[in-house]
Amino acid sequence: MRETVAMQAIRVTVWGENVHEQKHELVRTIYPTGMHRCIADGLSESDEFLTRTATLQEPEHGLSEQMLADTDVLTWWGHAAHGQVEDAVVERVQKRVWEGMGLIVLHSGHYSKIFKRLMGTACSLRWREAGEKERLWVCNPGHPIAQGIGDCFELPNTEMYGEPFAIPTPDEQVFISWFQGGEVFRSGCTWKRGNGKIFYFRPGHESYPIFHHPMVKLVLKNACRWARPEGSQWIDRCPNIPIGEAPEPLAKQGPSIHQPGEEGLR
Amino acid sequence: MRETVAMQAIRVTVWGENVHEQKHELVRTIYPTGMHRCIADGLSESDEFLTRTATLQEPEHGLSEQMLADTDVLTWWGHAAHGQVEDAVVERVQKRVWEGMGLIVLHSGHYSKIFKRLMGTACSLRWREAGEKERLWVCNPGHPIAQGIGDCFELPNTEMYGEPFAIPTPDEQVFISWFQGGEVFRSGCTWKRGNGKIFYFRPGHESYPIFHHPMVKLVLKNACRWARPEGSQWIDRCPNIPIGEAPEPLAKQGPSIHQPGEEGLR
Amino acid sequence: MRETVAMQAIRVTVWGENVHEQKHELVRTIYPTGMHRCIADGLSESDEFLTRTATLQEPEHGLSEQMLADTDVLTWWGHAAHGQVEDAVVERVQKRVWEGMGLIVLHSGHYSKIFKRLMGTACSLRWREAGEKERLWVCNPGHPIAQGIGDCFELPNTEMYGEPFAIPTPDEQVFISWFQGGEVFRSGCTWKRGNGKIFYFRPGHESYPIFHHPMVKLVLKNACRWARPEGSQWIDRCPNIPIGEAPEPLAKQGPSIHQPGEEGLR
Amino acid sequence: MRETVAMQAIRVTVWGENVHEQKHELVRTIYPTGMHRCIADGLSESDEFLTRTATLQEPEHGLSEQMLADTDVLTWWGHAAHGQVEDAVVERVQKRVWEGMGLIVLHSGHYSKIFKRLMGTACSLRWREAGEKERLWVCNPGHPIAQGIGDCFELPNTEMYGEPFAIPTPDEQVFISWFQGGEVFRSGCTWKRGNGKIFYFRPGHESYPIFHHPMVKLVLKNACRWARPEGSQWIDRCPNIPIGEAPEPLAKQGPSIHQPGEEGLR
Repeated sequence: MRETVAMQAIRVTVWGENVHEQKHELVRTIYPTGMHRCIADGLSESDEFLTRTATLQEPEHGLSEQMLADTDVLTWWGHAAHGQVEDAVVERVQKRVWEGMGLIVLHSGHYSKIFKRLMGTACSLRWREAGEKERLWVCNPGHPIAQGIGDCFELPNTEMYGEPFAIPTPDEQVFISWFQGGEVFRSGCTWKRGNGKIFYFRPGHESYPIFHHPMVKLVLKNACRWARPEGSQWIDRCPNIPIGEAPEPLAKQGPSIHQPGEEGLR
Repeated sequence: MRETVAMQAIRVTVWGENVHEQKHELVRTIYPTGMHRCIADGLSESDEFLTRTATLQEPEHGLSEQMLADTDVLTWWGHAAHGQVEDAVVERVQKRVWEGMGLIVLHSGHYSKIFKRLMGTACSLRWREAGEKERLWVCNPGHPIAQGIGDCFELPNTEMYGEPFAIPTPDEQVFISWFQGGEVFRSGCTWKRGNGKIFYFRPGHESYPIFHHPMVKLVLKNACRWARPEGSQWIDRCPNIPIGEAPEPLAKQGPSIHQPGEEGLR
Repeated sequence: MRETVAMQAIRVTVWGENVHEQKHELVRTIYPTGMHRCIADGLSESDEFLTRTATLQEPEHGLSEQMLADTDVLTWWGHAAHGQVEDAVVERVQKRVWEGMGLIVLHSGHYSKIFKRLMGTACSLRWREAGEKERLWVCNPGHPIAQGIGDCFELPNTEMYGEPFAIPTPDEQVFISWFQGGEVFRSGCTWKRGNGKIFYFRPGHESYPIFHHPMVKLVLKNACRWARPEGSQWIDRCPNIPIGEAPEPLAKQGPSIHQPGEEGLR
Repeated sequence: MRETVAMQAIRVTVWGENVHEQKHELVRTIYPTGMHRCIADGLSESDEFLTRTATLQEPEHGLSEQMLADTDVLTWWGHAAHGQVEDAVVERVQKRVWEGMGLIVLHSGHYSKIFKRLMGTACSLRWREAGEKERLWVCNPGHPIAQGIGDCFELPNTEMYGEPFAIPTPDEQVFISWFQGGEVFRSGCTWKRGNGKIFYFRPGHESYPIFHHPMVKLVLKNACRWARPEGSQWIDRCPNIPIGEAPEPLAKQGPSIHQPGEEGLR
C-alpha cells in the first residue's frame, strides 16, 4: 500500500438527441426524463463520475468550447436528427477527441456525423425491429470494459443490428452479439483517434428500457472509466521548424517558393 | 505454368491541384506540363497502366461519377488549394474508396480533405523547407510497394516532414525517412477503409524534381499495382430486414415506433 | 485489355494430421481418402491450383525444406496429435511464413503449435459437440475471401466454437459465426507475420462432412488465392553494418566490448 | 475532487541476464551493481514502484510462479545468453503476460525467447556499434509513455539498430529513432497479447551508461505505469460446454467421436 491520494472525479457529459422523447408517448413512458437523463443517472450510481447532460435543442447543442474543455468523456446518443447537428459542433467534438477526450457512441449513433468522421467509413449495417432477444458475448474477459459482466449477458427485447458493419478493424473487440433471429454483430469495439479513446456500444434502442438494464449500466460505467484521458493533451499544430532550429546543423540548399517563417498551407 | 490469361490494365487517374504550376516559374521549369502530367508519364513507362489526369480547374475537378467509376486507382497531389475542393466531390471520392478504388495520397496531400476524412485524425506534422537530404528506409523488404527498392534510397533535396504525424496507426509501415536536419517521418503508410486500399507517400515537394526520380517512379508503379481493387465492390447500404426474412423463425415482440418496411434514419 | 500473360499456378500443400481417419470408422466413412485428400480435391476443382498433400506420419511430416520451398500456400488441419509435430518442422514452417508463404489454419488447428507460435497468444476458446447449426456471416462483402458467398451461409451440423477466442486482434474480420445453441465466434480472421498472410477458418470438424460443403470449398479456394505470396521473399537476417558502410560518414566513438565484424548474438 | 483513496504500489520485477557485468570490466565500470540494479534504482526514484530484481543465474532465473504472481510489470534485458533461458520459464512468463502482467522488453531483448514468442516474427534488425548519436522522436506527444519527454531526446553514444525491424505492426508507435550514421528505427512500440501490455524500448546497450540517462529513466517509469494490469486476469481455459448448459435449448444431433464431458485435445 502506498499513501492515499486524492482522486479526480471523471467528468462525463451525456449527450442526447432528445427527439423521440418529445415525439413518441412510448419513448416518454420508458424514459420520462429523457434517455440522456437515464444514462446520466446510471453513471451517477457511482461517485466516480460527475455527470452533466447536453441536448440537440440547446444553443451549440449544449457543447460549447467550455463545456467540452470540462469534459473527460462524452457519450453520444442520436438517431432521428443526425443531420441537424451543426458541422461546427462536430468539428469541435472531433478536435477534443484528438486532444484526449473519451467518446462513447451508443446504438444508432453509428450514423452520427461525429462517428462517421472519426471512422472514415460508411458505418452501415443491417437492422430489424422485432423486439427479439440479444445475447452479448465477452471476447476478452479481462478487458476493463467487460469487468463484472461474466461470459455474456442477455437483453430480452432489442432492435437487431447485423453484419456487415462498415467500420475500420477495431483495435479491440470487446463484445459480439448473437440475435434470436439469426444474425451477429460486433457490439463493442474500441479505436483511438489522436489521443481520444472511442468505444462503440450497440445496445440502446429507444423503444425498449435498455438503459435501465443493470448490465448496460455496468458497461457504461466501465467504458467511461476506460475512456478517460490518460497522458497529456495532444494539441493539433503543424509547426514550421526554422532552418536555424534544426537539430543538426543545416544550410539552405536548392530553390524555394516559400518565404522564411511562412505558415503552412491547409 | 497454367494457361495464359488476358490481364486488364490498371486504370489510374492522376489528380493534380495544378496551382503552383500556374503561379510559380520555378515549378513550371521543373514540371513544364504540370506535376500531374509528370506523375502520369512515370506510370506510363509500364504498359500495365492506363493513365488519365484530372485537375482542380476542370468541372467537378475532373472527377465525375463516370470518371471515378472508370478508375481503379486515384493518386492525389494538392497543397495550396485544399479548401477549394468541393465537399460533394470529396464525398464521391470517399464513396469510391469504400467500394474498392485504391487511393495514393502524395506529400502535402496529408492535409487534403479526402485524406483527413478517411483517417479521422488531424494529419498534422512538423516541416521545414531547406532542400536537405532525405533517405527513405524500407521497413518490410518483401512488401509489394518496396519491390526493387533495396534497403533504402536517397533524395538529394527535399522539404522535411517530421514526427509527430497525426495519423491512426498504419496497417503496415513501408517506409520511414531519415532527414539530414535530424528528424524522422513515417513516409510510407498503408490503411484500408471499406474495401479501398490507401497508401500515403511522403515525397513530392513542388520545388524539387521529385517525380522525375527513378525510385519515386518505381514506388508509384508498385503502389498503383498494390492498390488496385481486389475482391468485389462493397456497396454502401443499410438494409432493413423484414421480420419474415429473418434467418431464424421470428415473431414481433414488444412495442415499436417504426412502421413495417420503413427506411432507416440517417 | 492488355496483352495476355502466362499465369503461374498456385502451389498448395494440404497438410493433414491423418489420425482420426485411421482410428475412427465414422471419420473414414465421411473422408474415405482422408480429410487432407478431400481438401486437396476441393481445390483441384479449379485449375488455378497445383495441390499436394503431406501428413504427420511421413518423414519430416512431409514438410521437408524442399517441399516448403515449393509451396505457395500451406493449409493445416490437426487435432489429436498437435504435440507429436516436431519443433524443428514447426520452426521451418514459421520461417517460410515469414518469407511469404501463405498459411490457412483450419478448425482445431487453433491449438496447433504453428498457429500458437505465430499468434503469441493462448488461442483458447469454448466448445461443444452437439451437431448444431452454424451460420457464418460475411463481415466484409468485398473481401477476396468472401467472393461468391453472399450475405452468409449455413452448415447444418457443426461442433460449436465460442468466444472468448484468445487471439491478437485480427487485421481483418471476414466471418463471424452464429450458433444454434446461442454462441458466437470470430470464424474467419486474417493476420500477417513477416510477409506471410495467415487465415484462420473455423469450420472443419472431423465428424461432419464439412469439407464436402460447396461454400467451404469456395472459401478455401478464395483463401488460397488471397494468401499466395506477393512481393518478394523476406530473408531473415540481422546484418552488422561496418562503420565504413554507414550511409553517413561516421567515426568510432566510445568504448566497445565487440570486435569489428563480429556476428550478432542470438 | 473525490475522496482520497489508497493506491497500490506497482510491483516491478527487473530481470537482468547479468552476464556482461560478470565478464567485462568495461560494463562493470558503468554498472557496478549490474544493469538490473541500475534499472531498478531508476524506478525506485518514485515511490509508485515496488521493485525487485531477478537474474539468469538464480534458480528458475529468479522467476518462480510466486515471483511472477506477485509481479505487475516485468522488465527484460538479455543479450549474450538468450539460449540459456529455460523454455519452462519462458512459457511461465508468457502465461503471466496473457493474464495481464505488463512486459517491458529492452534493447537486445528483441532477440529474447519471450519477445519472439509473443510477437510470432523473426524480430531481426540491422545493427552497428560505433558509439554514434541517437535522437528519439515522440510520435504521439500525448501518449502516457511519452509524458515529460518533449519533442525528442538525444543519447550521445549508442549502438545503432536499423530497419527493417521484423515485428508485427505495433498497436502504437511511441518513438522512432534517428541515427547519426544515417539509419532509422522503430524504437518504442506497443502491443497487447491476451491482457498483457507489451512495450519494446530500443536504448540500453551495455557499453554505454544508457540506464543512467534521465530521459531513459523517465521513459521506464512511464512505461511501467502504463503497462500495469488493468481489468481482471484472463485465465487461459478451453471449456467444454455441456449440451444441457447451452444458452439456447439444444438437442444432440449427428454422430460424434467424443464422449460426453470429455476434455478438449491440445
